[in-house]
Amino acid sequence: MKRILIVLTLGLFIANNSFSQNGEDSDYLMISEKMTDLALSEGKAYEMLRTLCLDVGPRLSGSSEAAAAVEWGRQTMINSELDNVFLQDVYVPHWVRGSIETATLLNSSSLGTIELTVCALGRSVGTPEPGVTGDVVEVNGFDELRALGDKVKGKIVFYNRPMDSRKRNTFEAYSGAVDQRSSGAIEAAKFGAVAVLVRSMTTRLDDVPHTGAMRDYAEGITKIPAAAISTVDANLLSSALKTDGVVSVNLRLSCKTLPDVLSANVIGEIIGTELPDEVILVGGHLDSWDKGHGAHDDGSGCVQSIEALRLIKAMGLKPKRTIRAVLYMNEENGMRGGQVYADSVKQSGPKHVAAIESDRGGLAPRGLTIKAELESPELQSIAKWSYLFEGIDADKFIPGYGGVDISTLEPLGTLLMGLSVDPNRYFDYHHSDNDTFDKVNERELELGAVVMAMMSYVLAMEGI
Amino acid sequence: MKRILIVLTLGLFIANNSFSQNGEDSDYLMISEKMTDLALSEGKAYEMLRTLCLDVGPRLSGSSEAAAAVEWGRQTMINSELDNVFLQDVYVPHWVRGSIETATLLNSSSLGTIELTVCALGRSVGTPEPGVTGDVVEVNGFDELRALGDKVKGKIVFYNRPMDSRKRNTFEAYSGAVDQRSSGAIEAAKFGAVAVLVRSMTTRLDDVPHTGAMRDYAEGITKIPAAAISTVDANLLSSALKTDGVVSVNLRLSCKTLPDVLSANVIGEIIGTELPDEVILVGGHLDSWDKGHGAHDDGSGCVQSIEALRLIKAMGLKPKRTIRAVLYMNEENGMRGGQVYADSVKQSGPKHVAAIESDRGGLAPRGLTIKAELESPELQSIAKWSYLFEGIDADKFIPGYGGVDISTLEPLGTLLMGLSVDPNRYFDYHHSDNDTFDKVNERELELGAVVMAMMSYVLAMEGI
Repeated sequence: MKRILIVLTLGLFIANNSFSQNGEDSDYLMISEKMTDLALSEGKAYEMLRTLCLDVGPRLSGSSEAAAAVEWGRQTMINSELDNVFLQDVYVPHWVRGSIETATLLNSSSLGTIELTVCALGRSVGTPEPGVTGDVVEVNGFDELRALGDKVKGKIVFYNRPMDSRKRNTFEAYSGAVDQRSSGAIEAAKFGAVAVLVRSMTTRLDDVPHTGAMRDYAEGITKIPAAAISTVDANLLSSALKTDGVVSVNLRLSCKTLPDVLSANVIGEIIGTELPDEVILVGGHLDSWDKGHGAHDDGSGCVQSIEALRLIKAMGLKPKRTIRAVLYMNEENGMRGGQVYADSVKQSGPKHVAAIESDRGGLAPRGLTIKAELESPELQSIAKWSYLFEGIDADKFIPGYGGVDISTLEPLGTLLMGLSVDPNRYFDYHHSDNDTFDKVNERELELGAVVMAMMSYVLAMEGI
Repeated sequence: MKRILIVLTLGLFIANNSFSQNGEDSDYLMISEKMTDLALSEGKAYEMLRTLCLDVGPRLSGSSEAAAAVEWGRQTMINSELDNVFLQDVYVPHWVRGSIETATLLNSSSLGTIELTVCALGRSVGTPEPGVTGDVVEVNGFDELRALGDKVKGKIVFYNRPMDSRKRNTFEAYSGAVDQRSSGAIEAAKFGAVAVLVRSMTTRLDDVPHTGAMRDYAEGITKIPAAAISTVDANLLSSALKTDGVVSVNLRLSCKTLPDVLSANVIGEIIGTELPDEVILVGGHLDSWDKGHGAHDDGSGCVQSIEALRLIKAMGLKPKRTIRAVLYMNEENGMRGGQVYADSVKQSGPKHVAAIESDRGGLAPRGLTIKAELESPELQSIAKWSYLFEGIDADKFIPGYGGVDISTLEPLGTLLMGLSVDPNRYFDYHHSDNDTFDKVNERELELGAVVMAMMSYVLAMEGI
């Protein structure tokens, strides 16, 4: 009964809360409410995202669009009146998709010769010009692959284990399936497969392939081409295999890796009034895949990070510690930006007290995940502020993952947090042509910025 | 601190909950979990909605599409193996939009002569063929209108008070603005205005008008034409008024009201094993406006109601009381279905213990609103089951509105509930061309059906 009563007597609970370290809690609640008013009436994240998506577009590391995105980030931070806007050099991989990516099902007795909807996985090698042709062997994962062993030699391995749609949190479903994409080619190559097709990482049945990165090959393994296949065509291919017994596919990919390119992380700050050398970081990643607009992944996290600082300034707040927005470059296929950033902090500081990453889409915020144990003082020190977000239904503060880019700060003692959002829609869009600006709801995006702004502000005032 | 600890120790809390009336709580939790698994992997609500939206389409009361929707509902209930599928006769108003609806800004000194994006409000009278022309008088509501009084005679009154986007719950923002639409023409007519334009009911700036119903005129007032104007063009018109001082508009509408048409509520059941004459009702409304697909409003509520019963049957559950799904006809412009239904219950029963309406869109469920006072036993009797929905983040059970159609059951002693969903997106779509099938997320829709299914099942077993 306790939880029900507490939910039902919310107002009373807020009035009576006794978390105060310094008697300022009612001020924080008032600030949170006013900031939410401001964000819902005059927030700028959505307009920032419009320009990033529609003027800059998708921005794969090393591309000219990524260079334009760096300039967009710098200028947007300046326009938002952040202090100390600067770029941090990052050399990034330069993988390009090229113009050719086809998978042709050949002479299927049930379907004839038809085109399947595929796209190269990021970092894949291309095929020779005529493509690679082989019989298709379907597996649901590495155990089945290893059981087949040398029988996949000369074949195209087709990983077709779906994300488990029963998972309440789709990120868990993703984690349970993504090894096929990240390591599928590497494992299949060990047994002499000539290529891999990987079922797209989405719980939907849709007709677009969802790309994504692969891990590094170990030395000595010959790289093989790898492509994502739409879930609709994955089902089609699987049914053809069942019907026909043997099917073969010709896969053509013109993707390739060019020399590294100089790019940048984009950084802006509000300098702390009392402890300027202690930093609370908010961030997202500026690069995206070359599909859709990179709207949810992770244009949203970028604009929320900038908007968090803009909101704090627009409210006339003066945080004691420095709050820094970092737009990381190259999260998708290299994580170079996160490495460079942490290396620079390690070498010359400043001390990073806490970091909040937004990289789960610009969807309705639900709270924060905190990289700390359930009973730990670190978790409690963050979770005690959750009441500030009850009014926008974003007060679930639970142990969990921080984020890919900020993970490099963990060895330096930084407490990591991730903006947690409603998980139902994200993988409808993720890494595909579906990830466009029109899929973002203005209110949801702006409310996420409030969580980042208010949480970073409180931590800048109170520490952890 | 209590709330935080409780959120953080959720698993423990569920394990220790002591709400049991009959020792079956762990069973209910297990059933809820299994039902969620089923809905997320093999739910049918989304496919039902696809056929309603794409095969039937929008279905304004009295239209041939509404007749097709009745047959769709009957057949979908039969296909879902509901018991006792039947239609209940309802005579409905038959308002038609016609092919002409234009508003031309005439000879504006700043903008010239341009077309504004408008659509007739539901139940509006049409204009004479050449339209109605008048100077535009902008007001923010009825106080300003009354202060102007006879000065609006012969003019077109332009209601331009926006929904307050700062409201955390957009339904509150809607409630705070919708009097302009529902009563604006009636009030302006009293002062001799010749027509009204009403700013569309949405917090977005968009280029589509959002229609909706008007109340009945009192006897003796001459009806005047009324149209919704897109928020983009409302801003444009307002700025022209500020710049030009005087602007005039020609409004042409060919809408009209035809004689009433025989239509139907569609009803299906699972007959209770022990108390078949006590009913738990789940429902939504089958009619929609003639815009978009009526996907969120309220195709979603219809398919969730059918799916709730299908899930219960698919799980092999045998509720003690009868669970009934009702697809109401004519919620949008008359509420005749709700009246007819309640009249029939009043005359001949069966007793309706509780009713749950879904009419806030097929968005991520957050819980239930319950038409009961905070400290009332009725509220507690419902709220004690909220723990069953913690796993899907839909456990906010709070006092609030039940629903339009089921409201007619309140005088009969029925406890009313409304499915509560994330409120941020609904008014982006509401009553406009934006309310299409592609705006519905499959998981969110199916999870809403779980809340309706599980709540109606528990109440059918335990009563209130």
